[in-house]
Amino acid sequence: MRALNTAWIAAVVAVTSISGAVAESSVEVPWPEGWRGWHHVKSMVIEDGHPLFAAFGGIHHLYANEQALEGYRAGAFPDGAVIAFDLLHVDDAGAALEEGQRKVLGVMHKDSKRWPETGGWGFEGFGGGDPANRMVGANAHDACFACHQPQADSDYVFSRLRD
Amino acid sequence: MRALNTAWIAAVVAVTSISGAVAESSVEVPWPEGWRGWHHVKSMVIEDGHPLFAAFGGIHHLYANEQALEGYRAGAFPDGAVIAFDLLHVDDAGAALEEGQRKVLGVMHKDSKRWPETGGWGFEGFGGGDPANRMVGANAHDACFACHQPQADSDYVFSRLRD
Repeated sequence: MRALNTAWIAAVVAVTSISGAVAESSVEVPWPEGWRGWHHVKSMVIEDGHPLFAAFGGIHHLYANEQALEGYRAGAFPDGAVIAFDLLHVDDAGAALEEGQRKVLGVMHKDSKRWPETGGWGFEGFGGGDPANRMVGANAHDACFACHQPQADSDYVFSRLRD
Repeated sequence: MRALNTAWIAAVVAVTSISGAVAESSVEVPWPEGWRGWHHVKSMVIEDGHPLFAAFGGIHHLYANEQALEGYRAGAFPDGAVIAFDLLHVDDAGAALEEGQRKVLGVMHKDSKRWPETGGWGFEGFGGGDPANRMVGANAHDACFACHQPQADSDYVFSRLRD
């Protein structure tokens, strides 16, 4: 599970060198309106000392809209599926970790027609949870998809639905 | 925030001695069917070294049904409001905390007619998330409500809705 999650995260930060990389899409990923009310899939905490702490330290929650929930269950995601990766700062309250401010809201949005070069998914990260602060933009193939690509069997999604 | 959360938790475990305690209700709190699909209110991690670690160590998530969500926003909860407190074990994956098995599913269920002695709330804890494993039962006044009682201004609820 850790490997899957950290790999997912690594993909967002790592700008890998891909020989023969396909053209990157510049179609903007929509802001995931209403995502806080979507199904809570799972959560994880990345602490100081973890290789990804600088970029992804904190507590993150994954949320799925109705189509994404259907996708998690089926193992393949229909167009319209959106997964939100909500990363919050962690406040150490003395042997207790509390949620702080939002660091970034990551988004995967499935639309095979709009994003054919990246497995049918659009990827974006909204810094501070600000719809105007796009951190990925046209860089989605190298910054995100490169790491998701080996997960083709689960439609490029690392996380799994839990009870 | 920590004080509020830990106090909420303390109430579930602490069997306090209340002089002149009112009669305890034996009306069973219903299993919160479908709670995993409810609105995710907030989360917190309680780690080793915390006074409540033995009973409540792990990661917990709070979920609200539609009426409870309305209650969080209004500051008072209508009958039918249900809040689920979902406590999971934490697996330490090396500077990363992952969710493990369910320890307990706590429930607050508002119904002024059924539970007048405990602020209109029914309290229960389902051990291991098992509907048949009731850990509170008729002991709700001392085991739960005694600690919630000072929170009368927020209808006996400690948690707050966050963005």
